[in-house]
Parts: sequence; structure tokens; C-alpha cells
Amino acid sequence: MSARTISDWIDGERLWSRHMELARFGALANGGVNRQALSQEEIAARAELVRWGRRIGLAPFTDAAGNLFLRLEGDDPALPPVLVGSHIDSQPSGGKFDGVFGVLAALEVQEAFVASGTRPRRAIESVAWMNEEGSRFAPGMMGSSIYVGARSLPEMLAVTDQAGISVATALEAMLARDEGIPQRPLGREAACYLEAHIEQGPVLEIEGKTIGIVTGIQGKRTFRVTVEGEENHAGTAPRSVRRDALASTVSIINALQAAMWDDDDITRFTIGWLKVAPNAPSVVPAKVVFSIDLRHPDAATLQELGDRIPEICVRHSGRCKASVSQLLHDPPITFPAEVRTLLGEAATAVGVPWMDMPSGAGHDARHLSLVCPTGMIFVPCRAGISHNEAEWAEKEHLTAGARVLATAVSLLAA
Amino acid sequence: MSARTISDWIDGERLWSRHMELARFGALANGGVNRQALSQEEIAARAELVRWGRRIGLAPFTDAAGNLFLRLEGDDPALPPVLVGSHIDSQPSGGKFDGVFGVLAALEVQEAFVASGTRPRRAIESVAWMNEEGSRFAPGMMGSSIYVGARSLPEMLAVTDQAGISVATALEAMLARDEGIPQRPLGREAACYLEAHIEQGPVLEIEGKTIGIVTGIQGKRTFRVTVEGEENHAGTAPRSVRRDALASTVSIINALQAAMWDDDDITRFTIGWLKVAPNAPSVVPAKVVFSIDLRHPDAATLQELGDRIPEICVRHSGRCKASVSQLLHDPPITFPAEVRTLLGEAATAVGVPWMDMPSGAGHDARHLSLVCPTGMIFVPCRAGISHNEAEWAEKEHLTAGARVLATAVSLLAA
Repeated sequence: MSARTISDWIDGERLWSRHMELARFGALANGGVNRQALSQEEIAARAELVRWGRRIGLAPFTDAAGNLFLRLEGDDPALPPVLVGSHIDSQPSGGKFDGVFGVLAALEVQEAFVASGTRPRRAIESVAWMNEEGSRFAPGMMGSSIYVGARSLPEMLAVTDQAGISVATALEAMLARDEGIPQRPLGREAACYLEAHIEQGPVLEIEGKTIGIVTGIQGKRTFRVTVEGEENHAGTAPRSVRRDALASTVSIINALQAAMWDDDDITRFTIGWLKVAPNAPSVVPAKVVFSIDLRHPDAATLQELGDRIPEICVRHSGRCKASVSQLLHDPPITFPAEVRTLLGEAATAVGVPWMDMPSGAGHDARHLSLVCPTGMIFVPCRAGISHNEAEWAEKEHLTAGARVLATAVSLLAA
Repeated sequence: MSARTISDWIDGERLWSRHMELARFGALANGGVNRQALSQEEIAARAELVRWGRRIGLAPFTDAAGNLFLRLEGDDPALPPVLVGSHIDSQPSGGKFDGVFGVLAALEVQEAFVASGTRPRRAIESVAWMNEEGSRFAPGMMGSSIYVGARSLPEMLAVTDQAGISVATALEAMLARDEGIPQRPLGREAACYLEAHIEQGPVLEIEGKTIGIVTGIQGKRTFRVTVEGEENHAGTAPRSVRRDALASTVSIINALQAAMWDDDDITRFTIGWLKVAPNAPSVVPAKVVFSIDLRHPDAATLQELGDRIPEICVRHSGRCKASVSQLLHDPPITFPAEVRTLLGEAATAVGVPWMDMPSGAGHDARHLSLVCPTGMIFVPCRAGISHNEAEWAEKEHLTAGARVLATAVSLLAA
């Protein structure tokens, strides 16, 4: 290695302008993007990423899940590579940085290696995972989960969007447009996985830190609750004969809120989606379906709280019938101490203030952590706002994040 | 009058088969109809009604609101007519009898007069009011309210459906298809108005009565409540910083339910329509909008309960902002004693069991009662089910209803 470290070759201006250029794909009026998974916008952005990679001298690969890899060859091609990345798909009204930063920072690290004339011992692969957001095709973190075998490819291919288009169809259309991009097997061995991401919360900004070393990702359970009553006339049906699905739902939500309450405000309990049928002002609701999103960093607490949900729903359903199905149960994960230590040392070497912090949101790193040593860093985002056109990160924070990543990668790939 | 009364000329089979024939217009798979106001289906049904009327010798008329009248001329054409009718538009999944019975029973009364060779002193006009249901174009009871001047024609013409089509456009298309149907002024003087309708509740069936003499229509106030919070990430935002519009809505609904509770179960309080935004499982809701439908037979109670709603919503909105707008305030109405007495005597003369009862639902008769002596009769509908494909009424009950109507009309038109 030269007197300059790899991190000195990080070009913050180039990194920033690539963020702005990628934001043209699916650009919205107020500065955000709509670049949902496997959309024309994402396909175009992906092609741009491939062009950038080839210009740097990276070799593009994909796989049956549509994940995109750009490989910087190492001195010893037989060694498992260092994998670094995130995603470039967005929410329907998302921002310029969520996911994109992790992919472009990885690309910037690769370009820093090339620019410095340093050839790493291990190959370094940047990766853009397919469908992290899950807004068009649920569930999210789809590509990474297929990659590590946590979800089955055929099951995920059968998932459809609201227009009835399947992942299989959309994926096939995307892969058909790939020119000279070989497909590799899923789940190839990696030496480690690193992911940089905007925090999507306000903590770094409040604490005045540039880098968060992510200790782990809290656990998450999601449920769908169906409350069935009976349609009735708002003018003629007495309360005593009504089986009002919305009234029962209100009782259920009340009871759930009380049961999930914690004085220390660690539990995350959200009812974000709720639908009423027939949803007419003068008709007593016959049916309500709603979602529950429950998160906690402690596995036992998450288990205990989630297990109480079905009983609470049934007990407070009044004259209606409540049923609960669990859609997802991801236990909390903790990133390995050695990766966290290395990332902390990298931040110290770069000379930026950092802190340890948990991740409230899920990330592809969750799945990668099942198969290789995995770590994440966060950079601040303004006021913690994300999944929003107003999402914003500062150029110097992105640059610092890429430098920390470069330092860590140079240690891991050496 | 001959030894046979007019009511003896009522042909129950003809009345029934017309119900079945009209149900072909907008027929649904499970026996119901989708024949919303000013739709192609309603326009076709209206044309069929005109054909039936002409065959009997009735003269069709319409007006600027698209109400349809079929006139049986009287001995003294200068006298205000006896007006009898209801509506033929339906809910999106409505039944064969709601509204239709009132129109076809009126037609049957007219045909009974013709068949008996009796010419009434006053003209008898059957009427099908435009847009009673209000499902496509809100508010409902549109044609009758315009007719009596309770709502303004230009305001109602500007109302649009979900596809953006205005009442003006839809009405113009309907009236353009009328052949030889003259338009008359709105609000012509009437001697009285009678309306027959299925009960849309279970009382007659439970009480074993064939006819309900309607004492009045309870009052109704409707509101729209908007609760505004802030979008946030379900994984990262602590409860303490959230402004969760759905959580606040649940608190508000709880408080409203408690405030509207009456031990005697007279108050009708319904939240039938509720929308969450952005309505995504992992996003803290930023906004909820919901409807309130409040009804009570006592004007003072309706006033007092309704007036409390805005304050309750604001007080229980927590960290969100609640605002309330009233959409409608129809005070309760009582039908005049002389019309009710006459209808009761008619039911006794026909020889069917009857009872007095209030109407929980609104009807066009509400508006007509503002301008002329008005009365209503109910016939049973199975299990009280209405606004539903399963809506059902018995042939003998429809026949009995038409006989009572014929008897009353023969007294009023004499």
C-alpha cells in the first residue's frame, strides 16, 4: 500500500454526482424517486450502474434472483470475495439516498482501489440486491433472502404486484435486457459482507456523530388481522343487533396498544395498513383487515409480545369474529463483534466521530449475516426522514462513510 | 265507484312480474342489481317504465332534475295531482325491491284505475325520483330534493362521480334519449305524496304485520373527520416522537362511542367509511379520514349529540390535529296525522294486519313532506336485509301494499 491509504482515493464529488445522476431514474417532482423493484426505471438505473462499473474495469454478473454484482478481481481469484453493497430500488415516493448510498459507496471503494493502483488480495464485489423495499412485490429484501437461501426462488418468482405481474415475468424482462452479463449461481461463498446506509432515524444527527456502527437489527414480526362482522343499514339497525367490524377493531387496537406499551419506549408497534369493507358512510362495516408490525431488539420479548396478539384480538372482538395470521417472524440479529470492532477502528482511522447503535429498520445485511461475517455502518440523514422525497444526506457524511468503508474493505480484502 | 273497489283491481301477479322484469336491468349474479343513478342500466329501466306507462295510457313527463312522472289524467286536470312513487336506482349491489316497489305499486294503482274504468277526480301521477341512493352521485335523494327546492339544481349538476363524470353530463345523456317526453317545471303543486317501500329492517317480520304506517323519518347528521399526523418509519420512530393518525383516530372513536351511548338503543351512530394514508404496513399513518353517520328521532337530542362531536374529536386527537366538517343535517320529520290515519283506515279496509312505526332510513318522502301532505307505508323484507343482493320481499306482501296504496289513493284522488 502506498503512503496514501485507499480511503484517501475516495472522491466525494464523484460519489455525490453519481447520487444525483442515479436520481434521474424515476425522478419525482419534489426531489425524490419512484424506482420500484424491476420497474423500467430500476432497469435503466441498473444499466447505468453496469456502464459505470465497466468503465472502472469491473466485471458485471447477475444471478437467478436478479441481484447485480460488479467484481474487482483480486490477486487470488480463488478466495471468497469481500461483498459490499445495498439496493437501488425505492419506495413509491422514496429518496435519493436510501440503498443507493450503499451501492455507490461500494462502487467508489472499488474505484479508489483502481485509482490507487492497489490490487487487493481478495476480489471485491459491489452488489445491488433485487427488491429490498418490497413495495411493489412483497416481501422486501427479496434478492438477498433468495441469495442466502432464506426464501425459495420459485415461491418468490410467483409473487405478483397489484397489476398481476409476477416477479418471474418482471425479472425475465430485466434479465433479457442484460448484454454480456453472465449469470452465476446463487449463494456463492463470501469472505464477509459490509453495507453502508443512511440511518433513517434522527440519532446520529442528535448525537452529532458522522458514523453509526450498527450493533444489530431488531427482530420483526408482522401479522394480518381479519375482523368479520355483518353489513347492516346505518339508519335501521339498532346497536344491539349490529356486528360492527370497525367497532370491534377499535376495541382490539385499544387492547393491543395497552398490551404492547413499554415505559422505556423500545417496542415498536405499528398498525400502518387498515381496510374497511364495504367502506360506505351509511353501511355498518362488515369486515376490517389490518396489519401489525411489531419490532423489538430482544428475541424473548419479541416472542412473548407477538405470541399474545392472537389471543388479544379474539378476546376483544365482541360480536365479530377475529382471526390472526403471522406473515413474518425475523428474530433480532447481532452483528459479530470482530466486524464491529474493525469498523470502529476504520472510523477512528478516518478521523470521524462515531457511535454504536442498533438498526430499527431491516436491511439486506440481515440475510447476509446468516452466511458470512457481516457489518453495517450508518451515516446521518436530515431529521431522520426517509421513505420520503424530502430524504437528504450531506455530501461530507457520504464521503466519510465511503472512507470508513474503504478502510474496512482494505483490511478485509488484504 | 263499482261494487268492486279500486283495490280489487290490483293484479299481484302483474306487479310481481314487473319486479322481476325490471331486475333484468343491471342484473347481478346473485339475484341483485347494480343500477346506479343515471347509469345505462337505469336509463334502460326508465325507458321500460315509460313503455309500460304508455301501454296503460299514461302520459310521461320529466323535469330538469330527471325525475320521471307518468300521469293518469283526472276529471279535473286543473286540480293538483296525487303523487305516488319512489325510485328505481340502486346501490352498487342492491336488491330487486328497494325503491322499485314504490314505483311499481304506484303504476299498479294507476293500472287498477284504468282497468276498473274509474276516472279519478284528481290526476294520479306515479313518479321515479332521480338518484335516491346517492352511491354514484352524493348526496342521495337528489331528484326529490331539487324538486322541492331543498337543494339547488346548479349545485347538484356540478356533483361528479368517481370517474369525474358530472350529474349534468349524465343527466343530459339520459334526457337526450327521451323520445316525446316533455319537460315540466320543477316543484309543481301536488295534493299529497304517498310512498310505499320495503321496510329495510326486521320489525314487521318480527311483529307479524303486513303493513307499517310510517310515523316519520328520524333525523340525520353526517360528518367527515380528518386526523392529521406525520408519516414515519415503523422500525425506527420511537412511540414518543410519533404522530400516529390511526392511533389518534382509535382514541377519538372510543370517546365518540362512549359519548353517543344510550341505554335504550335509540341513537344510531355509525362509522362506515375510513381511509388511512399512506396505508402501508411499515409506515406510521400520516392521515386518517372517516365518516360519521348519526341519527335520532328526536330533534333536540340529535342537535345536542351532533354538536358535541367536533369538541370530542379535537380533545382526543393526542399529538395529531383533528378537524370536523358537517356534511348534512336533516332534522327528524313527522308525517301528518291525517295522512297516517287515512293509511291506517286503508290497511284496515284491505284487511291486513298493520302497525305504526318510524323509519330508520331516509326516503324521498322526507323532501316531499316539506311541500305537501305526505305519508309512507312499509311492507316486510326478509330478515330486514336490504342494500344487498339477498334482499327479498313476498309477493303477497307487495300485493297487500299495493292494495292499501290503491285504497288510500282512491280516497285522496276522489
